[in-house]
Amino acid sequence: MLILIGLGMKFDDLTLQAVDYIRGADVVYIDTYTNIYEDYSKLIELVKSKKYKLAGRNDLEGDSISRIVEEASRWNVAILVPGDPLIATTHEALRVEAVRKGVKVVVVNGLSIATLAFSRTGLHFYKLGRTITLTYNRESAEYVVNAIYDNISRGLHTLVLLDIKVEESKAMSIPEAVEILLESDKKGVLGERVAVGIARLGFSNEFIVADLTENLGNYAYPPPPHSIIIPGDLHFMEIESLRYNCRLPIGVYEKLAGGRI
Amino acid sequence: MLILIGLGMKFDDLTLQAVDYIRGADVVYIDTYTNIYEDYSKLIELVKSKKYKLAGRNDLEGDSISRIVEEASRWNVAILVPGDPLIATTHEALRVEAVRKGVKVVVVNGLSIATLAFSRTGLHFYKLGRTITLTYNRESAEYVVNAIYDNISRGLHTLVLLDIKVEESKAMSIPEAVEILLESDKKGVLGERVAVGIARLGFSNEFIVADLTENLGNYAYPPPPHSIIIPGDLHFMEIESLRYNCRLPIGVYEKLAGGRI
Repeated sequence: MLILIGLGMKFDDLTLQAVDYIRGADVVYIDTYTNIYEDYSKLIELVKSKKYKLAGRNDLEGDSISRIVEEASRWNVAILVPGDPLIATTHEALRVEAVRKGVKVVVVNGLSIATLAFSRTGLHFYKLGRTITLTYNRESAEYVVNAIYDNISRGLHTLVLLDIKVEESKAMSIPEAVEILLESDKKGVLGERVAVGIARLGFSNEFIVADLTENLGNYAYPPPPHSIIIPGDLHFMEIESLRYNCRLPIGVYEKLAGGRI
Repeated sequence: MLILIGLGMKFDDLTLQAVDYIRGADVVYIDTYTNIYEDYSKLIELVKSKKYKLAGRNDLEGDSISRIVEEASRWNVAILVPGDPLIATTHEALRVEAVRKGVKVVVVNGLSIATLAFSRTGLHFYKLGRTITLTYNRESAEYVVNAIYDNISRGLHTLVLLDIKVEESKAMSIPEAVEILLESDKKGVLGERVAVGIARLGFSNEFIVADLTENLGNYAYPPPPHSIIIPGDLHFMEIESLRYNCRLPIGVYEKLAGGRI
């Protein structure tokens, strides 16, 4: 059996079902490369009685897929993934290959930034437009800004995920991202719009702040993972949420509530 | 302190953090009206040593908000909500009012259909366009179909949530929804597109199936909650996922993989 288990962001995000499946597994791979996780030590404490491996990209992708599927045909193999195990597309090839080979697959879902970002800020999930990743590849910036324009034109919010390259110890920060976005903003509409900076969402030192995009780079954020939401049209209740959940400065709040930005 | 706790869909979806906060609460409200939850009995077992209430709309909205905030200024008050506590907009007014009154608020996130629907099917979350609810109000059907058209024109997927009125013991089924959608499909484009029917997502009797929309009403689904995804453009890996995760019939799969629909 192949068991894909989402870890959420920190140890306490484990579901009861995840704990059960981890306890029942014969072999455990801990994905250490697709995202940043707060607390590997408690996780290792939980699995230490069994065969486990801190797994890099080479252990879980490409040629490793058929090896893991073969292993899962004989043992209970658990793959532990930060966040939800399948919201990023990384491990879908592994799942499909297992099903194709007749190996049973269980998915144990975990908390994902995709919903947490809305739940924590109070912005409305049903107004989420296309989600997009801003990468270090400069060509992506234009693509991202166009996606934001398109979402804004339809009144929709954009969740901008910032590049993470765990294996290179590299992750984009909100100030870096703001600089890239404003440089690529040919229409010059983003600077004076409100945006939300989200740092270490769901970690114990989570930091969320709303401000004009042009000011969003000026805050002292804890280390990545970072992401940004660029809201589309705002319901009055969302404006309250930005003020009370996301510390929107009072001056900006008053302009926004008064319809002056 | 006000603690908003997401339950996910079933008891085993509780996170370790949720269990801790429920154990530490003085007063517990269990939201029984915003969504369907598989397993109230185990939850009541967990909270039974303290003051708890199965809460309807009147207990948590409108005039009750200031009463609960006042209670939370003196005690640890936990509100237990199926799914994630804030992905629907229902309880946001309660949170904002608490923060406004200086009462500490903790959000303990839970699994949400918004991400599970993508994680389980293998469709790509980053291609999710605007999410929309199909209600029993017939006027909503036209709005929903237009949102689907708009998403399709951008290559994006549409998550269609189906109406649930728990307090009236009424919930829309996939066959009902398919009939409404096809009737409102003025352009006649939906029938021969592939769609995914998702019943009791995350429950122990979860049932997911992909087929042409015009055939999607013909399956024997377990009872609601139900929802539907209408995909936009499909990556070849997503087509594999529809076949291997969602039982897309082989004939439809071959047409789809061959670019013939």
